[in-house]
Amino acid sequence: MTLPDLDSFLSPRSIAIVGASSNRSKIGAVPVRYLVEYGYEGHIYPINARADEIEGRRAYASLGAVQAPIDLAIFAIPASSVSAALDEAIAAGVKNIVMFSAGFAEMGKQGEQAQAEFAARANAAGIRVLGPNCLGFMNVARAVYATFSPVVGTGSNTPGHVGIVSQSGAFGAYAYAMARERGLGLSAWVTTGNESDIGVADCIAWMARDPATRVIMAYLEGCRDGRKLREALDLARAAGKPVVVVKVGRTALGALTAASHTAALAGDDAVFDVLFRQHGAYRARTIEEFFDVAHGLAVAGLPPNTQVGLLTVSGGVGVMMADEAADAGLDVRELPAAAQAMIRARVPLAATHNPVDITGQVTAEPDLLEATARAMLGEAGHGSLLIFLAAFGATPAMRALQQQLARDLRRDFPDRLVAFSTLADAAQQRALEEAGCLSFTDPARAIRVMAAMRFFLRDRETAVIRAGAPGAAMAAARDAQAAAADAMAQPADSPAIAAQADAPPAALRPTPYSEADALELLTARGLPAVPFHRAHSREDAIAGANALGYPVVMKVLSADITHKSDIGGVVLNIRQEKEAGAAYDRIMAATRAAAPNARVDGVLVAPMVRGGVECILGARRDPALGVVVMLGSGGVNVELLGDVTFRLAPVDLEEARDMIDELKTARLLRGFRGAPHADVEALAQAIVRLSRFALAAGDTLESVELNPFVVLPQGQGALALDAVLISTQA
Amino acid sequence: MTLPDLDSFLSPRSIAIVGASSNRSKIGAVPVRYLVEYGYEGHIYPINARADEIEGRRAYASLGAVQAPIDLAIFAIPASSVSAALDEAIAAGVKNIVMFSAGFAEMGKQGEQAQAEFAARANAAGIRVLGPNCLGFMNVARAVYATFSPVVGTGSNTPGHVGIVSQSGAFGAYAYAMARERGLGLSAWVTTGNESDIGVADCIAWMARDPATRVIMAYLEGCRDGRKLREALDLARAAGKPVVVVKVGRTALGALTAASHTAALAGDDAVFDVLFRQHGAYRARTIEEFFDVAHGLAVAGLPPNTQVGLLTVSGGVGVMMADEAADAGLDVRELPAAAQAMIRARVPLAATHNPVDITGQVTAEPDLLEATARAMLGEAGHGSLLIFLAAFGATPAMRALQQQLARDLRRDFPDRLVAFSTLADAAQQRALEEAGCLSFTDPARAIRVMAAMRFFLRDRETAVIRAGAPGAAMAAARDAQAAAADAMAQPADSPAIAAQADAPPAALRPTPYSEADALELLTARGLPAVPFHRAHSREDAIAGANALGYPVVMKVLSADITHKSDIGGVVLNIRQEKEAGAAYDRIMAATRAAAPNARVDGVLVAPMVRGGVECILGARRDPALGVVVMLGSGGVNVELLGDVTFRLAPVDLEEARDMIDELKTARLLRGFRGAPHADVEALAQAIVRLSRFALAAGDTLESVELNPFVVLPQGQGALALDAVLISTQA
Repeated sequence: MTLPDLDSFLSPRSIAIVGASSNRSKIGAVPVRYLVEYGYEGHIYPINARADEIEGRRAYASLGAVQAPIDLAIFAIPASSVSAALDEAIAAGVKNIVMFSAGFAEMGKQGEQAQAEFAARANAAGIRVLGPNCLGFMNVARAVYATFSPVVGTGSNTPGHVGIVSQSGAFGAYAYAMARERGLGLSAWVTTGNESDIGVADCIAWMARDPATRVIMAYLEGCRDGRKLREALDLARAAGKPVVVVKVGRTALGALTAASHTAALAGDDAVFDVLFRQHGAYRARTIEEFFDVAHGLAVAGLPPNTQVGLLTVSGGVGVMMADEAADAGLDVRELPAAAQAMIRARVPLAATHNPVDITGQVTAEPDLLEATARAMLGEAGHGSLLIFLAAFGATPAMRALQQQLARDLRRDFPDRLVAFSTLADAAQQRALEEAGCLSFTDPARAIRVMAAMRFFLRDRETAVIRAGAPGAAMAAARDAQAAAADAMAQPADSPAIAAQADAPPAALRPTPYSEADALELLTARGLPAVPFHRAHSREDAIAGANALGYPVVMKVLSADITHKSDIGGVVLNIRQEKEAGAAYDRIMAATRAAAPNARVDGVLVAPMVRGGVECILGARRDPALGVVVMLGSGGVNVELLGDVTFRLAPVDLEEARDMIDELKTARLLRGFRGAPHADVEALAQAIVRLSRFALAAGDTLESVELNPFVVLPQGQGALALDAVLISTQA
Repeated sequence: MTLPDLDSFLSPRSIAIVGASSNRSKIGAVPVRYLVEYGYEGHIYPINARADEIEGRRAYASLGAVQAPIDLAIFAIPASSVSAALDEAIAAGVKNIVMFSAGFAEMGKQGEQAQAEFAARANAAGIRVLGPNCLGFMNVARAVYATFSPVVGTGSNTPGHVGIVSQSGAFGAYAYAMARERGLGLSAWVTTGNESDIGVADCIAWMARDPATRVIMAYLEGCRDGRKLREALDLARAAGKPVVVVKVGRTALGALTAASHTAALAGDDAVFDVLFRQHGAYRARTIEEFFDVAHGLAVAGLPPNTQVGLLTVSGGVGVMMADEAADAGLDVRELPAAAQAMIRARVPLAATHNPVDITGQVTAEPDLLEATARAMLGEAGHGSLLIFLAAFGATPAMRALQQQLARDLRRDFPDRLVAFSTLADAAQQRALEEAGCLSFTDPARAIRVMAAMRFFLRDRETAVIRAGAPGAAMAAARDAQAAAADAMAQPADSPAIAAQADAPPAALRPTPYSEADALELLTARGLPAVPFHRAHSREDAIAGANALGYPVVMKVLSADITHKSDIGGVVLNIRQEKEAGAAYDRIMAATRAAAPNARVDGVLVAPMVRGGVECILGARRDPALGVVVMLGSGGVNVELLGDVTFRLAPVDLEEARDMIDELKTARLLRGFRGAPHADVEALAQAIVRLSRFALAAGDTLESVELNPFVVLPQGQGALALDAVLISTQA
């Protein structure tokens, strides 16, 4: 996989259309027509054995007949013909193929096999493939229309700076039409279909390097290679290009539908959430939000800070905006006293804290608007400003005034986000956008865009903080960009990922691990666990308990029994030697009764640990997305409240601390109701070590769970009291 | 307060405009012009001593000079002139006044006083007042334009079936303009401003009876009379008219702003949430949602069931819709096998469960759309159908097809909600709406409307269940309507409220209640509490402990000490006589040290209660909204997770059970992890009794809290272990 190939793909100097036709009802007729109509400047070679020319261009009998370099071949032919066409393409030295043809992996096993064979042959010949079962792509700036989507026929899109990549053709076409309707200019548009070769991640990576693209919109239904997706998102982040994603299949019901309809494996949705967040991509929940955010980024760019100024002519709507802003976690801080005094001097009844309500007075003195806006962007230093003008903003005079104000504010405060909320027709909307400002009838939509902007700003701040010093941010971004580009060229770990996966590979054995085996191995890898004694006899168990000191706990040791408590395999709070012997007998009898065929390795004896705050630590390998590290609150909370948080490994100390803060019950760890502060740092260390352990185990790990993991009072560390380790069975 | 007056208000046969002017820049010129231009059919009397005629109508020197009945006088005059004008109005027998004049309660104490004096004088003369500081109102169907809002000057609204009432003038004007832009026809539009007399609740009640109004939109910033609001909402519910509300001041930040800007007292927002839910009003969170829901109700009405069919041409967007629907709690059930088979026979690759994905095949066979839609509305019986057509739906041919389909489906399934999602221009949108169908670019907005419809449907179902039998529903609604109308005529409890407040009034004493006083009183009112012994001496305490049986708990008894544990005033788990004496000594010493001035009434001795599930029960009187009953989960959950739920009293058994189910930790009460099932019925009973107790206490109650309230295993009941009762201090 090399990026230069994708450049020749998306910016080809010559395009052959296999299956080109003069019959406009045929799919093969469409791209030829688009390329000619929209003025593609490269060579166009229609391939059709029974035509002399198509759309005024000379037609060729075969790819071989072209006798010139072919950067891109479009296969607008049925699935039954693609194999022969590929032979031709290989012989003719074609570099890239876009395959509209349906009838592959989306049709079941047989189609999947045919698709894999095609992809393998193309790959062996060094040919990159987009599709099959896709709508193709467009490079709008270069008038490359390698698509048969009818949506292009109903009007072209203006060239711009937003790149759209969609797995789904239908959604891609809809996105194209929506962008056109909104006047949102596109750089590139790609649908990836079955992704036999090129996937969404490749396209994001390409757009991250494409100078015409400044904002990336990605629509995913599934992902088969989480690492590639993460690397692509890192590239976009390093290039300073915000990525807005929609990933469908969020809820259980949704995921069920996805599995029944797409050829891609839908991963666990919470993990996708984490993946996007960790790699700086904003996940939109609806189509409207997807476009509002991308459009906002394209028109106005990111503001310099997360402070939001709310300016209103209606007190009540000011309150609504404040509500929405508070919900979105925006920074709605009060104006400096001098700015407030200035506004009150002009409007004695004005609310001046923020929201600033200049009241109906503005109808008599429209210049109040500019004076207040300047105070908020100037003295108050708000990064974003939202101006609600109610019906008042819809008069012709006020429309003109807003346009002027938009231009003036962006001239004097070029880095700020200014959004107007009033009734604006399409022309007014465009005029405000041309000035670099946004316009929404409902101010809540502007707030939602500002919330997304906050996400990107905080993501950048985090990057700066982790790079060590504010000044180092840009350098770090540059380094990451360069290194990530290398990583793409050679399919290795991206440096961010490799840097922390510092544990050497350490495969797990394929045979089952008992609790004792698991605890020993984890302890060896630096994870704190309770000391214990393995006992193979009654006497040994008693001796172990005596040695450890009472009270102790005793548990049956068997790799075949997962739920030890359920079968009576656990006795807690054994206080003396006599109880220890009885406990041993009880456990053995219960185990024989409940699991007569289980291989029993005796019992595990460990001291009773009291106090501390119980958590659950875990990691599992997601086949598509990689190793997922989990922290949950213990006891009933994880089950009852789903109080759990995830990260993709590697997890560093900062991230581990963030995970802890994300727990709903985080306060339990911080001296809740007079309890001692728990040793949060020991917990964070354990998360990092578990992440390393899981990464080092690679494909040999299924899952590992430390439950309960008790966090003792500050300075006393933390301890796993039990562990379940499941390796990939041979 | 009588409703006929409001009829003469909103449908006046004659209108005098005090402050009428020929100078169009004056506020007093505006209503005269609107009334003349839009063809008001009643008498128009411009009042102006220095003009002969205004807008072609004869002007009068004073209200007295009119010498004819005046249903409505508009005061378009400064605050300084209203007192004299009121004298004139009283003398002339004016029935109603709308006061545009600003400078009253919104200006502070002095204005508040002037407003109260004006209202009292008007009230004494039997005159109803809208305002001051409002934009007035319109009765669109009767061309009554008693407003000076410039928004009416930019175009009139088509008469229709949606009534809008807004406390805020600016928001009201915006809502008027938004309705006009959407083609949403209005019946009436009222802004209530400072609400010196007529408030939002009065207008809702009037609209509930107004034959032209079918859907009510209400915008509130605060509420000073919760009972009236509840009665008004009950009237609308009984009349089968859905009410959609926006109440601003949701979050702490928002509420802060509301308090600084509005003359009305903003109540606790969670209580408003509960008030709206209990009385069947849907609370919208944003302006867009406010209009989407009201518009949907006006265009299509409520569907017959909560089942939603999702029909898509894009699998991925089908998944998105399913996600949104699942989040919204909609019933997305699978199609019957026969319907699925029919669809698969035509499109072998179709997903047929629900969402139904008819794939790109629809471009070749557009009639697939109708066949599938009919299967979903017919065989599957879906109450609502959402059809996503991507870009494909935007072609001229498909637009025509959708219009035809919309008409056909509504003809054959007149009670169903059908929504299209594709790109539709304004004309297409109107055409679909005229056929009774909805249209949204983003299907998520359609789902949001369907979620609101579900809210109304479930509210009706609950009403049916509570009425006892399905057939009784309509009768119950009629009864409620008639009874509620009575209630409006005589300001008494609405029957629904009165019926359950069956406890006779029982005022609390104004002096403080100790824990023992509170427990005794609550026990007398049927609330279960732990048995206890009041002890005034060491010996008495020991005797009490001996009598109750060990282990016991001992607590200091003092109405002056609320946080007994904090000062060392509580000793738990006293196991024997010796410990009891020591505990008494320790408590007395600690109390003397920590609260030397507290009046101490000895100690309370009670048995230690172990086991059970801890809850918190409480009630407080909200000065504006009435008695709020609270149930929280006990221990750390209420504080850590805010696991709490509210109802306005009276709370019946069904509602009490619903409250229990609403707790995030409800499963703890239902035998979580092998624990015994708790006596949930005893808890529900206690909630109902606490509601009755609080209602009976009326204005003498500040708040009462039973914490912990322990719910024992099934059949064993429940017990308050502690109680704090705060009465209104004399």
